[in-house]
Amino acid sequence: LGTPSKHLVDEVLAGQTRAIARLITRAEAGDEECRPALAEIYRHAGSAHLVGITGVPGSGKSTLVSALAQKFLARGHKVAVVAMDPSSPFSGGSILGDRIRMNDIACDPRVFIRSMATRGALGGLARASLDAVDILDAGGFEVILIETVGVGQDEIDVVQAAYTTVVVSSPGLGDDIQAIKAGILEIADIHVVSKCDRSDANKTVNDLKQMLLLNTYSETNGSKWSIPVISTSATTGQGLDDLAEMIDRHRRYLTDTDEISARRQRMAETRTIKIAENIIRSKFAAQQRGTISKTLQRVIARQVDPHSAAIELLAVLNEGLDK
Amino acid sequence: LGTPSKHLVDEVLAGQTRAIARLITRAEAGDEECRPALAEIYRHAGSAHLVGITGVPGSGKSTLVSALAQKFLARGHKVAVVAMDPSSPFSGGSILGDRIRMNDIACDPRVFIRSMATRGALGGLARASLDAVDILDAGGFEVILIETVGVGQDEIDVVQAAYTTVVVSSPGLGDDIQAIKAGILEIADIHVVSKCDRSDANKTVNDLKQMLLLNTYSETNGSKWSIPVISTSATTGQGLDDLAEMIDRHRRYLTDTDEISARRQRMAETRTIKIAENIIRSKFAAQQRGTISKTLQRVIARQVDPHSAAIELLAVLNEGLDK
Repeated sequence: LGTPSKHLVDEVLAGQTRAIARLITRAEAGDEECRPALAEIYRHAGSAHLVGITGVPGSGKSTLVSALAQKFLARGHKVAVVAMDPSSPFSGGSILGDRIRMNDIACDPRVFIRSMATRGALGGLARASLDAVDILDAGGFEVILIETVGVGQDEIDVVQAAYTTVVVSSPGLGDDIQAIKAGILEIADIHVVSKCDRSDANKTVNDLKQMLLLNTYSETNGSKWSIPVISTSATTGQGLDDLAEMIDRHRRYLTDTDEISARRQRMAETRTIKIAENIIRSKFAAQQRGTISKTLQRVIARQVDPHSAAIELLAVLNEGLDK
Repeated sequence: LGTPSKHLVDEVLAGQTRAIARLITRAEAGDEECRPALAEIYRHAGSAHLVGITGVPGSGKSTLVSALAQKFLARGHKVAVVAMDPSSPFSGGSILGDRIRMNDIACDPRVFIRSMATRGALGGLARASLDAVDILDAGGFEVILIETVGVGQDEIDVVQAAYTTVVVSSPGLGDDIQAIKAGILEIADIHVVSKCDRSDANKTVNDLKQMLLLNTYSETNGSKWSIPVISTSATTGQGLDDLAEMIDRHRRYLTDTDEISARRQRMAETRTIKIAENIIRSKFAAQQRGTISKTLQRVIARQVDPHSAAIELLAVLNEGLDK
């Protein structure tokens, strides 16, 4: 590690907010020169409790995350929020509407809030978000809330890079939106029905409970965690203490049963494989003009199908991997 | 090719609907034994005009696709619809609500409608959808409408496996939803504002036109296609002929300028790389118990970071790729 990098890593490990913010920015920009620093950071991370919070647009998850962060603060924890923010490569900016609602806690020094957005590939956003989690973890934040929109594989991968996954549902969302959500319901350790002051909230709670009759326990082998459904209201504050308490209880459950080892296994696996895929993807991009281009020409000419071509190309890439 | 497979391929090439449906079902099930048949099918595909249609949930794209299919039918074309349907591995079923609205055209023999859903990985859904497009293409369908929900990289990859991409926006969707959509706006060759009978439709049209001031032409080099914004109403039928005509015009533009070659390049590339990634992913899964497991243990123990581990693992996988 070069001296400036080592200095930055030391500052992060000492919990200095500005150093933390700076390193996250460099990770987000895809700065390859900070890779050794991130590798070092990774080795020091692993103490924080990572809580993934996901839900479809309009489910009220941002408001919930803000309220939940305050609860953990009140319990004496340092809290960080990392939000994956869908952004347009077109406009070049992230959409900050949701985050503005977090202003009420944004000034407390024991809180760190970061919206992640990249101008490039979606895979890059997932990677940078997980780097940010490591940095905050190594920097001494005890609870890290990872907020994602529950759509798309990248978002699911990121939210599953957490020990406890909270899925937020909301009364009154259309069927079309519920359809997308279907894919994320089964990753929940804890279900939350937000906006429970609404009159149609009971229906949503009942729908979830009905669904849970089929699968009462969360996924991993031998697990006996019974998935709760918690009603919350950011307006009245109802259910927020219950939720914070339930997250703590799930954390203790993971440790007591050593279920946490299975989670760590899954997290390391998903993340490493994703990175390997991205490396493959960039190798393809880099070798565009060579052999790969010739194979793709045959795909375009319909002389060979994409599946056979992929197998051919992987063989070619193998030879170039060490370079 | 074995005799039963060859027979099935011949029936597909002769345009027999039942054979087409059967092969799509096998592709969707991930049946590896139909891989040679699909390779053969791929070599015969490539004549259809592929139109990707995407938009966020609630944008009215399913209704639009149904109406558009009727327009192409009326113009004398055989039309197929392939819809990527988000499905829950939990319930094991696809959500068919949207498709029901298509019943009015589903009985015409010159129309083929298929909702694709898989119980497994999202990557598998994208792959099966593109296989289905090949099968329909080789089976003589002249226009294939590929409908996806505009969220997630898989969906974007699939919709970009089309020559003409239509992005559907709708008046009155919340900001949170628009945020997700931001990522797909820039892939449009044609913008559609649906539900233009609504009073707030003008605002949506103006927002899109405002955005297009920054980037009037669609992406590929040297292209001079000026991206239109078309207002449609499935209720009154307004704009549907314009849209069908515009899609035809875009098709002629692609051929006249040879822009179609660049699109074919991009399509072959995206698809082949995606398959290569999936192969890598399944290799990882298969080698779980061996060297890979040991490397992942070091990631879990925080002795090595995921990035360095990915590079190590790719080197190991190389050796196993031919087996």
